[in-house]
Amino acid sequence: MSERILGVLGGMGPLASAQFMARLTLLTPAARDQDHVPAILWSDPRVPDRTAARLGGGEDPLPWLRRGLRGLKAAGCGAVAIPCNTAHLWIDGMAEEGLPILHIVDAAAAALRAVVPSGPVGVLGTAATLQTRLYQDRLDRMGWTCVTPTPEEMDGLVSPGIAEVKANRPEVAFAPLAAAVRALAGRGAQAVVLGCTEIPLGIQAGPADSLGVPVVDTIDALARVAIAWAKGD
Amino acid sequence: MSERILGVLGGMGPLASAQFMARLTLLTPAARDQDHVPAILWSDPRVPDRTAARLGGGEDPLPWLRRGLRGLKAAGCGAVAIPCNTAHLWIDGMAEEGLPILHIVDAAAAALRAVVPSGPVGVLGTAATLQTRLYQDRLDRMGWTCVTPTPEEMDGLVSPGIAEVKANRPEVAFAPLAAAVRALAGRGAQAVVLGCTEIPLGIQAGPADSLGVPVVDTIDALARVAIAWAKGD
Repeated sequence: MSERILGVLGGMGPLASAQFMARLTLLTPAARDQDHVPAILWSDPRVPDRTAARLGGGEDPLPWLRRGLRGLKAAGCGAVAIPCNTAHLWIDGMAEEGLPILHIVDAAAAALRAVVPSGPVGVLGTAATLQTRLYQDRLDRMGWTCVTPTPEEMDGLVSPGIAEVKANRPEVAFAPLAAAVRALAGRGAQAVVLGCTEIPLGIQAGPADSLGVPVVDTIDALARVAIAWAKGD
Repeated sequence: MSERILGVLGGMGPLASAQFMARLTLLTPAARDQDHVPAILWSDPRVPDRTAARLGGGEDPLPWLRRGLRGLKAAGCGAVAIPCNTAHLWIDGMAEEGLPILHIVDAAAAALRAVVPSGPVGVLGTAATLQTRLYQDRLDRMGWTCVTPTPEEMDGLVSPGIAEVKANRPEVAFAPLAAAVRALAGRGAQAVVLGCTEIPLGIQAGPADSLGVPVVDTIDALARVAIAWAKGD
C-alpha cells in the first residue's frame, strides 16, 4: 500500500484531469482498491486561460496555480502532477511553493524515447506552449529535432480542436487534430507528441490507424511517471 | 462561473471516482474551462473495504471517511458527493463533520423516476448495500418494489463483477454483471439500478442493447445532482 499521496493540479481542462485520474488507475498494477495510488485532484477550471495570459495579456494564472499547490500541500501531498502542458510555463513561480513537480515534458520525453530515439518528431500544443518553445528547446537538447504546425495549421486545426474538447465535443475535435498530426508526419515527423492534454482526448475519439504515425499521449506519460513516484521508484 | 466548490470523497474505487469526474465535466453545459464546476477529489483507495467492514468485522472505514471530509472542508468545499454507494452506510457518522452530503440514493431515485415511475425495479449492489437495505427501504417508501439478486447470483455474478472492475478489468466484468441485470429483468424488474459505482463501469464495457431493460447509472445520477448544486439550484 502506497504511503505517498499524489497531488494533481487540474481543471485545465477538467476532462483532461478526469482522464488523468482514470489512466493513473488503469496503468497501476492492482487487484483491489487498496493497491491503487492515493491522490488528491484539485480541479479548478476557474484558473485564467493560460494561452491568453501568455500571449494576449490576459489575467495571470499564477496566483490560482499557487493557491491549488498550497491546498494540495496542506492536504498532505508529497509531489504534484499537472495534466496541463501550458501551465508548465509558470513552473518557476509554482516551484516557490516547495512541492516537487513531476514535469510533463520530461515524462513525454521518456515516452517518446521508447518510440523514436532521435530524429525529427512533431509537437502539437497550444499557441503559448509552441511560441515559448516549452517542448522544442528541451527535445532539441535531447537529440530530437522538432517539427511544429504552421500558423495556418494552428489557427485552422490545432486551436479549434483544443477548444472543441474544452467545450465537451471531443468527437468534433478529432478531424482537425488528426489533420494536424498528418501534416507534421507529411513534413517528416516520425512520431508526434500531443503536447496539450486536450489533444489526446480528441485524437482518441477517432480511429488511431488513420493517423499514419505513432503519437505520444502526454496524459499517459505523466500518469506513468506519477505511478513510479508513488511506488517509490 | 460557479463560486461553489464541490467536494468528491472518492477512491472507492478509484476508477469510479475518475468516471465521476469525467461525467461531472461532460454533463455540464460548457463552452470553455471556466464554465465547468470547481471540484476537489479526495481519492483515497486506502479506505478499508466497506463490505468487509459491515459484514465481516473488517477495519472500520469511518475514521478514513471522516479524515477525507475534513480535508475537503479545509480546502473550501461546500458540499460533498461520494461516488461509492456502500460508503453511504456510514452517512450518520460522516454527517458529524458538518459538510452537506448529496445522497446517492436520492440521486438514483430521481433518475429512476424518469424511467419507471413506480412498480417493480431491480437493485444491484454490494452484499453490504443489499443486506442493509440501503436502497430497498428508501425505494419501497417512494412507491417502487425492489427485486434483488439471489445469494447465488451475488456470489457467482455481482460480487465477482465488482471485483473485476476494482482490478482494472471492466471488460471481464461485463458478462457476469449483464447476466445479473437480465436475471432481475426476468423476475419482473422494469429497470435496474446499478447501485454500486463499479457496476456501470462493467456494464458500459459491453453492448447496452443486450441488457433487455433500462439501467440507472448511479455515477451519472450523482453527477447531475452535483452539477445542480454547483449551479445553485
